[in-house]
Amino acid sequence: MISKLAIIGPGLLGGSLMYAMRARSADTKIAVWARRLDAVEIIRALTTADIASTDIATVVSDAELIVLCVPIGAMPSLAEKIAPLVSDSAIVTDVGSVKSFVVRSLDQIFAGKARFVGSHPMAGSEMTGLSAARADLFQDSVCIITPSPQTSPTEMDLISGFWQVLGCRIRILTPEEHDRIVALVSHLPHLVAAALMHLTRDAQSDALEFSGNGFRDTTRVASGAPEMWTEIFATNREPLKNAAQAMIEKLQRAVRLLETCSDKEMMQFLTQAKAQRDSLRSRK
Amino acid sequence: MISKLAIIGPGLLGGSLMYAMRARSADTKIAVWARRLDAVEIIRALTTADIASTDIATVVSDAELIVLCVPIGAMPSLAEKIAPLVSDSAIVTDVGSVKSFVVRSLDQIFAGKARFVGSHPMAGSEMTGLSAARADLFQDSVCIITPSPQTSPTEMDLISGFWQVLGCRIRILTPEEHDRIVALVSHLPHLVAAALMHLTRDAQSDALEFSGNGFRDTTRVASGAPEMWTEIFATNREPLKNAAQAMIEKLQRAVRLLETCSDKEMMQFLTQAKAQRDSLRSRK
Repeated sequence: MISKLAIIGPGLLGGSLMYAMRARSADTKIAVWARRLDAVEIIRALTTADIASTDIATVVSDAELIVLCVPIGAMPSLAEKIAPLVSDSAIVTDVGSVKSFVVRSLDQIFAGKARFVGSHPMAGSEMTGLSAARADLFQDSVCIITPSPQTSPTEMDLISGFWQVLGCRIRILTPEEHDRIVALVSHLPHLVAAALMHLTRDAQSDALEFSGNGFRDTTRVASGAPEMWTEIFATNREPLKNAAQAMIEKLQRAVRLLETCSDKEMMQFLTQAKAQRDSLRSRK
Repeated sequence: MISKLAIIGPGLLGGSLMYAMRARSADTKIAVWARRLDAVEIIRALTTADIASTDIATVVSDAELIVLCVPIGAMPSLAEKIAPLVSDSAIVTDVGSVKSFVVRSLDQIFAGKARFVGSHPMAGSEMTGLSAARADLFQDSVCIITPSPQTSPTEMDLISGFWQVLGCRIRILTPEEHDRIVALVSHLPHLVAAALMHLTRDAQSDALEFSGNGFRDTTRVASGAPEMWTEIFATNREPLKNAAQAMIEKLQRAVRLLETCSDKEMMQFLTQAKAQRDSLRSRK
């Protein structure tokens, strides 16, 4: 399908892309860029990629599809370096967890040079780095694509086809819708898990000694990389702030129900929450 | 060790107690009380217990240890029925998730009749009922025992030994300490998970369509039985209210950090949360 795929940054997502693409398309030339020589040497030793280099020109030249798999904050400066080097038929995408910021910055940088279309494969874990990468990371996950008004049907087909080959189900949203929804189902849960950990940290007793599986599950995401999450929060401030405010209001309502012994309303609150959570089980 | 064990209520915990005890002690006579005849018939068909009956006198008479495995709200009225029937050397315990309320009520009911000592095995899941019961449910979990000033060393030895045989690690707390800690590591996480589900319910878009593994883990406990959790919340109002207030304050602080672009402080907040969460991984 794709003649040459350039993967920029061999972390969890970039590394998994490399493995997943190699497993599914023997004909695609896979080129990987890493900032550090030791990372390049590890990728060369793996022999999964056709090209591994710290020289970005070698990696992106003639690439049909370029996927930025670096932290969001590093994307604009890397895009500035890549833009003059790509063929004008190249399509550039990314894997960032925030879309308005990324699309706004990269649309501008690639204007007149290549076409940028934002992607967000909703796969990952609290693990990071190439050592956690796996060929099936994207299997059965949702990939959100956020086309701009300039994105052509051909470009959409190429990007959608790419993620579908890797096992993703495609959903299309505007960058703003994406950021609002993801603030709710990913960024707020991370903030909440971190806040729960802080409460056990503040406690006089060793509260963790008494935590069970429920607590472990609820707080697992708090182990995610702080640098990455600080950057995600910083580039999605407004939607996350709104989600956190809505969460505060829900908790304030629960406090009122406890204070007024409104057990019937509490029961209704928990019953509705259970129905909503149970509906998730039956989905793929 | 124990000549006769009476299990009052064959749900997830009572049923698991039955299986676990049978697997570990061939000599203990196991008697199970169920409110409904059809439940008794299921237990008889399983042949794991020596006695299964809706007649509470048959089940508790001559029992050395009686374990109340019914919902917290049903404990006082059942205890009133059991108290006149037990031998005065009998020890009564429970498996309730709240301790001040239970210990206060049951200490009084059994005064002069049998000795009550509260227990809280921190095992369970969002599943309920006998069909979810398993012999290894208590293996490697923490069991908190909340003795009263009247509890003798012999009584403590019997209760501790009982839970240890089933695979639990024993921790001893006062009922008030128990309720404060459990509000933080179990009741608040449940409330938070329910609130997150409500936010996705309120959202205009189908937010669940875009949720990944992190969201699933963070909200898993929201599938727990609403009746049970309403009762837990209602019998632990004050500690849960305080925990929810502390959570609101943490979220308000996070909102301020977002508003003032205090990314360095946010990074520190997330780094501390990660360190605290990572410390949980290395524990058993």
